[in-house]
Order: sequence, then structure tokens, then C-alpha cells
Amino acid sequence: MRGLMQDWPMLCHRIIDHAAMVHGEREVVTRSVEGPIHRTNYAEIRARSLKVAHRLDREGIKLGDRVATIAWNTWRHLEAWYGIMGIGAICHTVNPRLFPDQIAWIINHAEDRIVMTDLTFVPILEKIADKVPSVERYVVFTDKAHMPQTSLKNAVAYEDWIAEVDGNFKWKSFDENTAAAMCYTSGTTGDPKGVLYSHRSNVLHSMMANNGDALGATSKDTMLPVVPLFHANSWGIAFSAPAMGTKLVMPGAKLDGASVYELLSTEKVTFTAGVPTVWLMLLQHMEKEKLALPYLKVVICGGSAMPRSMIKAFVDMGIDVRHAWGMTEMSPLGTVGGLQGQYAHLTGDEKLDVLQTQGYPPFMVEMKITDDAGKDLPWDGKTFGRLKVRGPAVSGAYFRVDTPILDENGYFDTGDVATIDKHGYMRITDRSKDVIKSGGEWISSIDLENLAVGHPKVAEAAVIGVYHPKWDERPLLIVQLKQGESATREDILKYMDGKIAKWWMPDDVVFVDGIPHTATGKILKTALRDQFKSYSFPTAAA
Amino acid sequence: MRGLMQDWPMLCHRIIDHAAMVHGEREVVTRSVEGPIHRTNYAEIRARSLKVAHRLDREGIKLGDRVATIAWNTWRHLEAWYGIMGIGAICHTVNPRLFPDQIAWIINHAEDRIVMTDLTFVPILEKIADKVPSVERYVVFTDKAHMPQTSLKNAVAYEDWIAEVDGNFKWKSFDENTAAAMCYTSGTTGDPKGVLYSHRSNVLHSMMANNGDALGATSKDTMLPVVPLFHANSWGIAFSAPAMGTKLVMPGAKLDGASVYELLSTEKVTFTAGVPTVWLMLLQHMEKEKLALPYLKVVICGGSAMPRSMIKAFVDMGIDVRHAWGMTEMSPLGTVGGLQGQYAHLTGDEKLDVLQTQGYPPFMVEMKITDDAGKDLPWDGKTFGRLKVRGPAVSGAYFRVDTPILDENGYFDTGDVATIDKHGYMRITDRSKDVIKSGGEWISSIDLENLAVGHPKVAEAAVIGVYHPKWDERPLLIVQLKQGESATREDILKYMDGKIAKWWMPDDVVFVDGIPHTATGKILKTALRDQFKSYSFPTAAA
Repeated sequence: MRGLMQDWPMLCHRIIDHAAMVHGEREVVTRSVEGPIHRTNYAEIRARSLKVAHRLDREGIKLGDRVATIAWNTWRHLEAWYGIMGIGAICHTVNPRLFPDQIAWIINHAEDRIVMTDLTFVPILEKIADKVPSVERYVVFTDKAHMPQTSLKNAVAYEDWIAEVDGNFKWKSFDENTAAAMCYTSGTTGDPKGVLYSHRSNVLHSMMANNGDALGATSKDTMLPVVPLFHANSWGIAFSAPAMGTKLVMPGAKLDGASVYELLSTEKVTFTAGVPTVWLMLLQHMEKEKLALPYLKVVICGGSAMPRSMIKAFVDMGIDVRHAWGMTEMSPLGTVGGLQGQYAHLTGDEKLDVLQTQGYPPFMVEMKITDDAGKDLPWDGKTFGRLKVRGPAVSGAYFRVDTPILDENGYFDTGDVATIDKHGYMRITDRSKDVIKSGGEWISSIDLENLAVGHPKVAEAAVIGVYHPKWDERPLLIVQLKQGESATREDILKYMDGKIAKWWMPDDVVFVDGIPHTATGKILKTALRDQFKSYSFPTAAA
Repeated sequence: MRGLMQDWPMLCHRIIDHAAMVHGEREVVTRSVEGPIHRTNYAEIRARSLKVAHRLDREGIKLGDRVATIAWNTWRHLEAWYGIMGIGAICHTVNPRLFPDQIAWIINHAEDRIVMTDLTFVPILEKIADKVPSVERYVVFTDKAHMPQTSLKNAVAYEDWIAEVDGNFKWKSFDENTAAAMCYTSGTTGDPKGVLYSHRSNVLHSMMANNGDALGATSKDTMLPVVPLFHANSWGIAFSAPAMGTKLVMPGAKLDGASVYELLSTEKVTFTAGVPTVWLMLLQHMEKEKLALPYLKVVICGGSAMPRSMIKAFVDMGIDVRHAWGMTEMSPLGTVGGLQGQYAHLTGDEKLDVLQTQGYPPFMVEMKITDDAGKDLPWDGKTFGRLKVRGPAVSGAYFRVDTPILDENGYFDTGDVATIDKHGYMRITDRSKDVIKSGGEWISSIDLENLAVGHPKVAEAAVIGVYHPKWDERPLLIVQLKQGESATREDILKYMDGKIAKWWMPDDVVFVDGIPHTATGKILKTALRDQFKSYSFPTAAA
């Protein structure tokens, strides 16, 4: 028997409708790409989103067509999001930090019909314009006064373009499973893969984010998303903030410590979200200038692990730090690391221990860890296994890729290796392609690296698994020493001895002049595995 | 184009699964009907819910079958909810405060196959047992030691009944639009009407309730729902608390001031929810015994309007008061009255003015006010019109009633008359059947009653609309004076003069010995309209 409640499809534009009706005067403040601070509110943003929708409709953009944005966090970008999604077109956020060839590949794969962009990225787009034949028009997020001379096809200033319609327009109606947005993941191997969010998944994700233990901002809060709209959906903030009527502060193109501090301070921001690099720049600026942030209540940090010293710095200022973990494929929130009830009383190192985990999943994210055969492993905080996830805001497939990506129970393999404790707190221990499989047991390459780099003479350390006739794989520690330092294999191993289980000890240490990195600064383990493919352990004969 | 996110149906039992996995040790504390305080946790509740599901399945209960509960807020009742819903059966909560004949009517209309109940209600059920032929078995929420002698068909103690299975059972799978629960509204006219919640509507409602500006409890909070599970879904708390991992304190059968205070105090409750009568009893007890509640942070109050003095009493204790308005047909949350950003700085009377409204709708509740012709009216805080609502947790139809209940835009008419201000704050001014329609303009009978009752000699006042040849309807004020007092028509009107618009002034005042009431204490205006049906105004000839 079916329930008798209303059929009310979860559509993204209903969020901006709600914000305009109930929180219409709440501000959206932007450091504009042109320079000055710009102030608007949710009522105006909705009215202008309807102009975008109206103008796209006149342009002939239809349900399912892709419209790309390559842009900073600004009020215009937010308007474009709601306008594009509100006619059932797909808002494709492109990361401008990718190589131009990757950007061209992605635009071609998505077959974007329109590209909306900031002044900043016009030169990049001009370079690849002849490689992206699907693009019919470029809309530059600026006004006539700031519009540059450009060779981009049918280029128009956003303000001129939307001025061509009156915005007296109704959102289109469609099923909640209709695609709303698209974002490509850039793995270290293979082609980028397109994640295709639905209206349903975006709306559910925003509700998940708005519970008090996840992001949890309210209508009394001010949120500054340093994390860009092109980075995994801006962690959902473009939806969750208007759904709650939270005031938004958009940092535009300036993400350095001084610029972020200025906005946090002058706008009395209470919640902010970004990657560790941003917080490092902020903390350095604050320390140098002896500054405080008395209004800031919560810092959400994701993208990569937050160093303990950084967590402590915020905690010492009385700020609630929440470590978040997620993926583009998860919309992106997977876990958020607030303190659960049983930990609320903790202080000092015990508190930092909890805050340093990646956190626990909110309702609507299901997690499990399994061995290679898919068998569930216990949540004891020690055993580590492949981290798999399930939920309404988790990918079920990639755009135009036929290969199934879910296991027989519908779980998506994150590619991470993790432990989970009895309270659901998850700790990433490795990437599954990097974990060392020794005699059926797993050794975390990251834990070994973090330990080795603590040695005073070590500049950087990498650990890879190398073939071993008895154990299948054993850890090889690759060390780059600090300039002018010298050390032996034995020095390093002696330093590590006693700090880890005996069987985790690397079977050998090799010294190199430099360790290769990816474009985003991560250790390029594929290159190291290639470099050491003919290496064999001295212990291998034993 | 469809999005490519996972198909993850929103099913109620996924909430208790989440609670057991991530918040398994969080407590559920009950003042048991048998007397002692009982302590369990979400992991145990889930395990025992699975036993209920297993046992119901063995009993032959199938998808869509109705299982009634007539019971207080206890851990066993909560287990029964999840167990019933987890096999796709419909959990029908019956209000034990109804007249026995109404209870029988409702059980028959729902065709309940099993009734699960508390010791308290066995005598009532015995009285109507021969009138409810669909019921195959009665399960009493107790153990063998406390099981009474009873004539109820196939009666069994709950603990014995679930002990017959091991609970090694999987939840059933079904579509998220499947009916999960049922609750009858008891209007003052006509038969009770069955609201049929779906799994989808219950889950969405719980997420809506868990935003920081609605109920907003977290895993660090302890929630005491005084509002019963049989009263409009316990305002969703049976779902929202486990979804967040909020500790639950269940008051069982004792809702008097001393008993509620004792639980609030000993369990360090931070959030509580109930009707004004409960808070009146609590405040009286606290005043008499000179008690404090230092841990209590938030009081949610709904069911009927909270007097200003009561709001002030909690505010003066530093407690955040949130007025809530809703209906069984809304799952039930419609509006919640926290302070939005622009009001956060208010103090004193200005703050109380905001807190005395019914609040504003969270995302997923759409509201509008219209005139009788269905035309939208402005949100200016003054104009009042019929309050209509739309959303995924709002009724679209009643169980086995063919009459459509939505307007052409899918809105449900609440039967209330209200104003809405520009920030979405709603204030109920009347019931639409009671509002007085004078020359095309509306006059609030409630506002006139509240004013008249302020006269020192007036015990109670009622206002009804009476036919007027020129204005269609004009207000007639019906007054019951305090024992031993006397007053004239002119005394009363003079008191009201200047406090309301001239054209709101009642055309006449009549004095009566008693004003009729409904079973729940509301003024029975149908009886008054009947009593005064031949009345004609002295002004009518003019």
C-alpha cells in the first residue's frame, strides 16, 4: 500500500525559492573578481537566477543539455547554478586548476553547449577554444564596463546577456531523479570520470549537511566557503546555506591568508570550510599580524588530512574544528568529525585524538570495511580494510562509462583503506592501491611514511610494497634526506623500532635525491613503483 | 537525462540501522509503565525491533497490513514502531484519550489485525473488544510477571511474544512511497480521517526536524519527548532522535510536573517537547519547590498557542523557547519559531513578540495565504487569509476517502486563518470556519475573545459571526461573567474601544451562564452558532 502524502519532487530550485521567500533579505556578500565587495541577498539571487533560466531557455538550452561553469565563488556563479538547474539543464563545474588539455578533454566528453566563466579564465579558454567544438557561446561573469576583447565564440558579458530577458519565467517541472549537475574526478590514472548528480541527491545532501553535527550552520550564522564551487560541489554549501537561510560570504579569486582573514573578520563569519592549505595560510597570517577571530565558531576542513598542530591551533582559539572526508562521488560528504556525546567532555590530547580522525557518517551515508574478498571487517578501530560506501548521494555509475562501479550489495569502493571504531569514527590509513599486503595482512604505507619523516634527518619519505617470495609484498622505505645530512639504513630503522609492530618494519631503506610528486603535491607512487620494479630485498632469499 | 547517483530508498528502518551502527551505545531511558526506570540503547533497540519484525512475519502480517499501538512513550513502543514498519506493515498509532467508541470506530476503519498496548489501556480495550472483529491478537507491552488476567483475544505479554523468535531476520525491501504509519485526526465535525504516512515522508520529515533551527538536537543532546508517540507522530522525534544519535528519555505514563521535572533533572535533558499544559504543570511544580533546570537548553512547544507569560518564564531561565505549529496532516511540523539572524539580538518584549508567533517554515514546507477565491495574499504580517501548505510530508489524501483535499496547485488547506510576515513568521489568527466575514473583510474571533477576556469581570468570552443584512456577517460577543459579578453591554464595549479597529467592534454583547466546550477544552462554536441561530442584531435594521 502506498502512503498518501504529497508528491513533491526534490528539485534544486525549490531551495532558492525557499531562501527567497523566508530568508529573502539575508545577505550574500562577495569579493568580486573585478575587485570591490558586492552585496546582494537571496531574494535578488533568485530573481536573477530566473533571468539566467529564461535566457538559457531562449538560447535553446533544453532538459539534459550541459552548461559548463569555470568560475570562482561569487554571487553570479551561484545565480548561474540555480538558473541552469532550474530548467533541467546540467550545471557542469570545471576545475580551472586542471591542465588546459584536461579541461578541453572534459568539455568535449561532457559536450558542453555553453561555457560561463570569470575574467580570470578567459585566456585559458582562448587557448583551447578551437579544441572544443560543442561550445556555442561563452558568457563572461562581468558587466559591459569590464568585458575584455576576446576571440571566444559569441562571447557576451553576463550582465548584458541576462538583461535581454525580464525573468518573468517559471522553473521547469521534471522528475527529481533528473540530472542537475556534473563534476569530473581527476584520478592519477586513466581519463577523468564524470559524476552526475541528480536533483534528488543534491537536495538530500543539503539536508544531510544541515544537521547540527555535520556542517550545521543556521539562519543566525554566516558561512564562508573557501572551498570552490568547482571543487566537489563546494561541499554542498551552495545548497545547504540557502536551504537554512545562512548568510553567505563568497571569497571570489583571493584565497590567500590576508584576504580570507579580512572577510572572516569584517563579515563576522561564524562557519567556514576549506582545505588545510588555506588554513595554513590563514594561521600564518594571523600569527604574523597577531590577529584574532572572535566570531568564528566552526572550521570545517577536508580535501586532505589536517595536521594535528593545525587542529590544536584552532582548538586553542576556542574554535570547533570538524574534519570532513568525502569524494566528488559522494556529493561530497562522507564523514564529519564533530565530537559525539560520549566525547563531549574530552580535553587536551584525548580530544585531539578524536578530532584527528576523519569523523563519522551522518544518516544517509552507509559505510563498511572489507577485505579483498569482500568480507566485512570489524569496527574495532584497529582492523583496516577497503572502505566502501552507499547512500542516495553516492555515485552509482559514471557518465558514459559502462563498467559497473558497485558491488553486489550496492556499495561503491572509495579506493581508500580505513579503520572504523565502534562509534563509527573512520580513519583513512592508506589508498588501497598503496597499502602493502604482507602475508595476507595489510600494512599502512602512510603510517610508515609519517613515522619515518619524524626522524630529524629525513626530509621526505615514501613507502611502497615490493614483491617478496614468502610474504607476497613487503614495505620498502624510500628516503630523501635533508640537505647536507647523512644517515644509514640502520639509523632510520633504529629510530622506527619500537614505535610500530615488528612485522610492519620496512625490509629495506633506500636513499634517493628526490621523490616524485603529482601536480597537487601528492607522492607519485606509480613513478616510484616503476623506478623500483627490478628492486629485490636483501631478505628475499631468507 | 537521469542523474547517476545510487538508488537508495528512504526507509524508516534505515534510521534505526544508522543509530545502531554509529550511535549504538547511546541510551534510551524510560520511566516504565510498571514503575522502575529502564535503560537500554539504540543497538539493543534495533536488535529487539528485528525480533518484532520477525515475530510479526511469523504471525502472517504482510506488506500493507495494519498493526495498531495504543501506548505511552517507552522503549518497547519504539521497538514496535521500527519492527512494524520494517516489514512494510503500517504502524497505526491510536490515541487512548479518545472515547472508547471513537477508538473502536478507528480500529474498524483501519482494519487493524494486531493491537499492541500498555497495561494502562487493557481495561478500555476489553470494553470495546467485541466491536473490533478485525483484531486477531493483543500484545501487551510488559513481561510475564506483570501480565494481567484478560479476556482480550490471544493476549500475550510482549516479552514472551518476541522471545519466540531469535531476531535473525532481514528487514523487507520495498519502495520508499510504501505506507509506514497511520494516524487519525479527530475533527470536531464528521468522522475521524486517517493520515497515511509513507517511509519517504517520515524520513524526509526527520531530516527537516534535525536542522539547527527546527528541533535541532545533536548527538551531544538528550531529548525528552513529553509529546506522545500517538500524538501526531510524536512530532517526528521517534525518527529524528535516532537519526542524529540523540539520547532519548521516555516519560512513560507519568506526565505530571514532578515526574517530568525528575526526568529532566536526573537525566540532564537538554531538549524537550510538549504541549502548553505540560509546561504549565512543570513551571508550577518548579516554582512551588524552588527548582532549577541548569541543563535544559531548548523547549519546543506546540499543540496550542503558548501564553506569553509561559514563554517569558522559560526565557528568564535562559532557555531557548521554540513555538511550533503543525498538524497530523503535516507529519506534523509546519513552522518552528526560533529567532532568525535578523532577530538574534532582540531582548525583552521585542523578543517575546517574535517568540509568540507560530514561527516560520523549514525548507520542504511551502506556505501561502489566500482569500476565499484562492488568490494569494501578501506576506505583510497584517493581511490574514486561509493558510495552505505543500510539501513531501504533507497529506495528499485521506485513507479511504475519495474527496480530493488539494487545490489545483497541490496545496492543502489547513483550516486555519493566519498572517505571514516578510520573514515567513506565521501567526494563527483564527480557524477558517470561525473567522467573521464582514463586508468582504475578515475579523479574527480569537483576537476579540482574547481582548474581551482581559476585562476584569469576564470569566470567558466567545465570538461568533451572525448574519447581518448589510455586512453579511458581524461579530457577536458572548460573555460569561465571573461568579457574582455584573456588567452591561456598554461596560464591555467601552473596555474594548480603542484597542481594536473600529470596524472590528462587536455589534452586540450577550451574557450567558456557561459557554460549551469540546472534550479537549476548546470552545464549541458549532453549539453556540446553533444556540444563536435566530438571533438578530439591534443594528441590523439600520
